Amino acid sequence: MKWPGAFRLKSMEWLLITTQTQRQVIDLTDLLQPLVPSAGTGLMTLHIQHTTAAVTTADLDPGTDLDLLDFLEGVVPDRHWRHPHDPAHAPDHLLASVIGSSVSLPYARGKVLLGGWQRLVLVELSGPRERRVAVVATAGLESGTG
Amino acid sequence: MKWPGAFRLKSMEWLLITTQTQRQVIDLTDLLQPLVPSAGTGLMTLHIQHTTAAVTTADLDPGTDLDLLDFLEGVVPDRHWRHPHDPAHAPDHLLASVIGSSVSLPYARGKVLLGGWQRLVLVELSGPRERRVAVVATAGLESGTG
Amino acid sequence: MKWPGAFRLKSMEWLLITTQTQRQVIDLTDLLQPLVPSAGTGLMTLHIQHTTAAVTTADLDPGTDLDLLDFLEGVVPDRHWRHPHDPAHAPDHLLASVIGSSVSLPYARGKVLLGGWQRLVLVELSGPRERRVAVVATAGLESGTG
Repeated sequence: MKWPGAFRLKSMEWLLITTQTQRQVIDLTDLLQPLVPSAGTGLMTLHIQHTTAAVTTADLDPGTDLDLLDFLEGVVPDRHWRHPHDPAHAPDHLLASVIGSSVSLPYARGKVLLGGWQRLVLVELSGPRERRVAVVATAGLESGTG
Repeated sequence: MKWPGAFRLKSMEWLLITTQTQRQVIDLTDLLQPLVPSAGTGLMTLHIQHTTAAVTTADLDPGTDLDLLDFLEGVVPDRHWRHPHDPAHAPDHLLASVIGSSVSLPYARGKVLLGGWQRLVLVELSGPRERRVAVVATAGLESGTG
Repeated sequence: MKWPGAFRLKSMEWLLITTQTQRQVIDLTDLLQPLVPSAGTGLMTLHIQHTTAAVTTADLDPGTDLDLLDFLEGVVPDRHWRHPHDPAHAPDHLLASVIGSSVSLPYARGKVLLGGWQRLVLVELSGPRERRVAVVATAGLESGTG
């Protein structure tokens, strides 16, 4: 029996990303676009299921990914951390919590709406690993009249 | 007259959290789980109604909560701030704005979906106080076909 | 022919903000309020379409906006950045990615729900410019019973 189209609800998608290096900024924009509903307006919300990686938006001119990683590296002091599993991983956890694990982007008529230079990015802080990002589309409501 | 079940819309819930110390990381995951809709997929979005506390996700191995607080303490320099109410509170406001006041987590079939080590946390920066966190569930849409 | 009210879906609104100085914190709360649906509960989610500006929530006591800008200025070291378009803009991009481009605020019965001192703010890091912020309202679901 074929899966009836009417019941083929795909209300949650996952992006599976294999990162290549210890710290890396990866552009997810082109992976997100095919998941955008073809009609209506609303939000694409992403949530990364990890504690040593984050999602945000960024400029990705050449070298700006490395600028971001250098900046993050410098923000965390080199000191003894309590984290018992591996104290060397503590900065990865701390940066992930501050950058954040979720971001919401508007879409309209099948397109995710970003600024001209704006890209959706995964910030890998403790790679290389396979990372899972949940993607949920929600519909926009008619706005009030004030 | 009893409140008719059909009209018992509970589309916004609140978590009321009493924090115990000046700075503290509190795990909200087990408080969120009972608020997840029992069917369907979508998002649980939380927003904290305060300017000296934040919500995010974090690893909570033993001691990692204190690592996060030490890291945050060190990020803000010890200088004179303008904040008129109490300049000593300025760092609490600044950190809250950078960490953020909202986070969105996916759910499916009655469960909030987090990574294996990932917890939803409240970061108290100026406790002890009673904190209010709004919780709104929204339904996911069927994804597009690209 | 007049635009029929029944089809006047305005499910995405835009805030257009002209910033006045290079770095500035601008209160968007009063601009958001008229866009809140007049009934029901749910979320107002904002996303800024730029890579050198951010949105978050903040205390806005007098001077606290300048405290936030001073703090951000101090977080980024004065070093050579790779960013090819204009290396001097690199800190603006880095801070925007860490603060974040989206925030979700709850609403109920026509009002956005913020804490007593909490304001929705745009953080301009490379002004003066015209900035676009998308605003999407989504409806809350009835919560589960656990």
